[in-house]
Amino acid sequence: MYRTHNCGELRMDHLDQQVVLSGWVQIGRDLGGMTFVDLRDRYGITQLVFNMDDNDELCQKARKLGREFVIKVEGVVKERASKNPNRPTGDIEIIVSSMDILNASLVPPFTIEDESDGGDDLRMKYRYLDIRRNPVKENLIFRGQLAFQTRKHLTENNFIEVETPVLIKSTPEGARDFVVPSRMNPGQFYALPQSPQTYKQILMVAGMDRYFQIVKCFRDEDLRADRQPEFTQIDCEMAFVTRDQILDTFEGLTKYLFKAMLDVDLPEFPKMAYDEAMKRYGSDKPDTRFGMELVEMNDLVKGHGFGVFDSAEYVGAICAKGIAEKYSNKDLKGLTDWVMRPQIGAKGLVYIKFNADGSIKSTIGKFYSDDVINGWKDALGAEIGDIVFMLSGETEKTRKQLNELRLEMGNRLGLRKAGEYNPLWVVDFPLLEWDEESNRFHAMHHPFTSPKKEEVSRMLDGDHETMKSLKADAYDLVINGVEIGGGSIRIHDRALQQKNFDLLGFTKEEAESQFGFLMGAFEYGAPPHGGIAFGFDRLCAVMNGVDSIRDFIAFPKNNSGRDMMIDAPSLIDEDQLDELNIKLTTEVEV
Amino acid sequence: MYRTHNCGELRMDHLDQQVVLSGWVQIGRDLGGMTFVDLRDRYGITQLVFNMDDNDELCQKARKLGREFVIKVEGVVKERASKNPNRPTGDIEIIVSSMDILNASLVPPFTIEDESDGGDDLRMKYRYLDIRRNPVKENLIFRGQLAFQTRKHLTENNFIEVETPVLIKSTPEGARDFVVPSRMNPGQFYALPQSPQTYKQILMVAGMDRYFQIVKCFRDEDLRADRQPEFTQIDCEMAFVTRDQILDTFEGLTKYLFKAMLDVDLPEFPKMAYDEAMKRYGSDKPDTRFGMELVEMNDLVKGHGFGVFDSAEYVGAICAKGIAEKYSNKDLKGLTDWVMRPQIGAKGLVYIKFNADGSIKSTIGKFYSDDVINGWKDALGAEIGDIVFMLSGETEKTRKQLNELRLEMGNRLGLRKAGEYNPLWVVDFPLLEWDEESNRFHAMHHPFTSPKKEEVSRMLDGDHETMKSLKADAYDLVINGVEIGGGSIRIHDRALQQKNFDLLGFTKEEAESQFGFLMGAFEYGAPPHGGIAFGFDRLCAVMNGVDSIRDFIAFPKNNSGRDMMIDAPSLIDEDQLDELNIKLTTEVEV
Repeated sequence: MYRTHNCGELRMDHLDQQVVLSGWVQIGRDLGGMTFVDLRDRYGITQLVFNMDDNDELCQKARKLGREFVIKVEGVVKERASKNPNRPTGDIEIIVSSMDILNASLVPPFTIEDESDGGDDLRMKYRYLDIRRNPVKENLIFRGQLAFQTRKHLTENNFIEVETPVLIKSTPEGARDFVVPSRMNPGQFYALPQSPQTYKQILMVAGMDRYFQIVKCFRDEDLRADRQPEFTQIDCEMAFVTRDQILDTFEGLTKYLFKAMLDVDLPEFPKMAYDEAMKRYGSDKPDTRFGMELVEMNDLVKGHGFGVFDSAEYVGAICAKGIAEKYSNKDLKGLTDWVMRPQIGAKGLVYIKFNADGSIKSTIGKFYSDDVINGWKDALGAEIGDIVFMLSGETEKTRKQLNELRLEMGNRLGLRKAGEYNPLWVVDFPLLEWDEESNRFHAMHHPFTSPKKEEVSRMLDGDHETMKSLKADAYDLVINGVEIGGGSIRIHDRALQQKNFDLLGFTKEEAESQFGFLMGAFEYGAPPHGGIAFGFDRLCAVMNGVDSIRDFIAFPKNNSGRDMMIDAPSLIDEDQLDELNIKLTTEVEV
Repeated sequence: MYRTHNCGELRMDHLDQQVVLSGWVQIGRDLGGMTFVDLRDRYGITQLVFNMDDNDELCQKARKLGREFVIKVEGVVKERASKNPNRPTGDIEIIVSSMDILNASLVPPFTIEDESDGGDDLRMKYRYLDIRRNPVKENLIFRGQLAFQTRKHLTENNFIEVETPVLIKSTPEGARDFVVPSRMNPGQFYALPQSPQTYKQILMVAGMDRYFQIVKCFRDEDLRADRQPEFTQIDCEMAFVTRDQILDTFEGLTKYLFKAMLDVDLPEFPKMAYDEAMKRYGSDKPDTRFGMELVEMNDLVKGHGFGVFDSAEYVGAICAKGIAEKYSNKDLKGLTDWVMRPQIGAKGLVYIKFNADGSIKSTIGKFYSDDVINGWKDALGAEIGDIVFMLSGETEKTRKQLNELRLEMGNRLGLRKAGEYNPLWVVDFPLLEWDEESNRFHAMHHPFTSPKKEEVSRMLDGDHETMKSLKADAYDLVINGVEIGGGSIRIHDRALQQKNFDLLGFTKEEAESQFGFLMGAFEYGAPPHGGIAFGFDRLCAVMNGVDSIRDFIAFPKNNSGRDMMIDAPSLIDEDQLDELNIKLTTEVEV
């Protein structure tokens, strides 16, 4: 037997008990005739004591233990002379009477401590050491428990978890597929699912009524901190439901998860139309933890001889409260440079400083008198002590820039508070986006999204311009400016689905060969249905106030899609290629 | 709103309530001035009544409903004149006041009834209709609930579910990998995991202590009824445990699942060594629901001048109780033909019939007197009325043939009872199998399996012959003759792992390039660990007394690895191939 207890559970209740513990040597300290070893496992740390006077040989052996050695000890639980109130086991220690070294350890490339991670490359290569560190370990445990709580809540609400296939069919729509050559079907390929979208709809046609799955999805796209080639979704679908029933159901799930995992009571989730979100925040995923909303200034600023504003399609402003005294010219210059970086792309930054003495300092004083500017105060919600920032240009682009500036100012002013959660349903998205370049429509959500009920006849009969204004019965769940989930009411009618494929530029043959099975299914009694998918990795991150999803993935890939620990992908044998009826068109080093 | 209740929940308690129901038309019956429609959803069937006298138009509309039309009705709950005690909703019916047809349906290729499935090909192509059938639907619900109960029990026992990657590294050991070309790493490939074996061991090195995952695994092998290219495992690993602690833990899980899902109390699981199982049953996965064990007859039968037995390495027998009168010469001839089929491969079948009158009829009467044969009775456990069957030849082969014969007789005699569950741990497997053909050892379980503790020094120092006799610390869970799970204590020492790779014919370079990360991890404080994996699809099947795992998979593939519904795999675009730096070496029809 390796242990009677783990390293996190002994307390004063256990005094004088004979116990066996196993774990890793966190650190050893020699003090005179005593050696103290902190023994660590997943559950905690327990202090071991070796006494030279009691057992010289054993104590000498303990002194030779290196960090991360794996040992098993037997001993008796005693009260500590100097207790450690920061550690749940801090009242006791183990007076060790025997010890086995179960495994030695080389000196690890970084110490197993909260703040010592050795940098990203080392962390990934030695992920087994990285996971021993508390923050990473706790993240993985959080993720596991979040998955369990999700399943518990959905199961209790009559959802059935159904596993859908991983080896499916490649469809050029959407992101790039990972493909898998089929040995048994030469020249043919499976694809890994970007999501189980069509399967979950098929399950609704199949009468499963309420489906969910926590499921791996795959996209062969260029990577960044919040994107991985494989990621996990909480994937859900319901039949015979209205949009609001879906929103209620998953608002319920979200509230349940925040309560169960964080003991946070979320407020009611407000609903905001896409158009309103774009107008007020310049974003379809606004962080509503703070105000600083976009104010359209067109009517106020035009006709004063300032050409830039006069010629702009859109002039917008945000008001940063109480920073007039804090922000020097240099700060403002810095912020101007920030908005002019290519990532933001503004051509310049207009600011208006409402000084404490009532004076105004602005970059547009030449064109607007202080009286005129003071007249804007109400519209801007500005007061003495504030700075207003203004951007102008093409509407959509400028709103996006203002959104970036708003978020940046929110960060700088500490308005995006950790531990505060503001959920929001964004609804009524456009159904289609016109793409000038490819001269066709793209689905804003995906090709299976239904237009709102009142739009169906417009969609079936309308002209090209009508299509641009169609609203989808689609919705996103946004928390603190992060899109946590998205979904829609689906089309369940063959003719409407065919019409949508037409609009999206599919030929009849393409639509049939790729999605014929789904349109076929719609002819055999498809019920009205809709659903949602949550980005599970991202949900973990947002609940913990963290940006990177990698911290919640046990074995993430780097930006080149490599697993640094196992060193994948890798070359494969010529024989394997032959069997799969493929060959490389690129030279590789062997 | 589509419904106030589902089609399975209305009872006498709901009398006179106004309700809205939605679902599928199971069947309609016109009786005089009334039309009855059975409305079905996942939860049940409710009878709808349309009355010509009350609403002629509505009743006419109802008469035109086809099977599988999707409708929504509003009406009032009334007590039925003639109740249907076989249906939970059978006491009531809905007097319909209004109806919407939500979707029409073509005439389905088979009716949605328990016994009508239209054959395998139609079932798979129209899987969305097949799943509407109760037996398939119930199987999927069973599977979903079994997964949930598994997670619940393991979570309550401190196991953490950790998701391991799907895009990993190809290793030629074991079955054939499915591979995925990497666009970002030209010429390189990911592989889909045959199991998360190395990752779960890494998680033990990482200190996760108790890991589990219900996870998709992939093998590119030729298919049959109980094998799919993608299948699901309950994958588990524990650190600081002995074999018996692992067996206790997963005996606990199995008992919990049988109780929770089937209300079956399983008995204690006996343990049987591999050698004993082979001796007594001729199989390492014996069905222990019945006796009819193999009896080795060598000492009794040799030296009586019967050349076949005298020259055989092994002569074995089974005794089929009480069938002497039932089994005619023709039956015995049939059974002889059965064992001589190539799938079994016996050269003939010796039988001894202990007739009711005390006489003996046998195929070996020429060599053995009745007295001699009667003298075998004790050893055989044979009595008057029994038939004894004997086979002879090379030991291992003959035992396997006797095992097949035993199972066949068990089936014929109804000894393999549905609803009876006999679990068994088979332990102490050989570590290595010598393969004459390739002139090297194969791992009986897998290359990471530890020899039993007392064998380690023999393994490190022994000669070639010693290796053949090494016992592994490996175990299988067998229920009713089906291997439900298997696992082992793992090697956690670099030198021993290296030695095992040597024995398995890996060069140092191969071992390093394929498993260097794992051996590296063993040098940084790897704890003793072990685990198990359950075949989840098979567990579903065995718990339901079914042979085929396909019945428990929502969207299985056929024997050519095809998804008949979505028609995958399929051709992909030339552009896709180019991006992946591969081309086909086979001609395909476009």
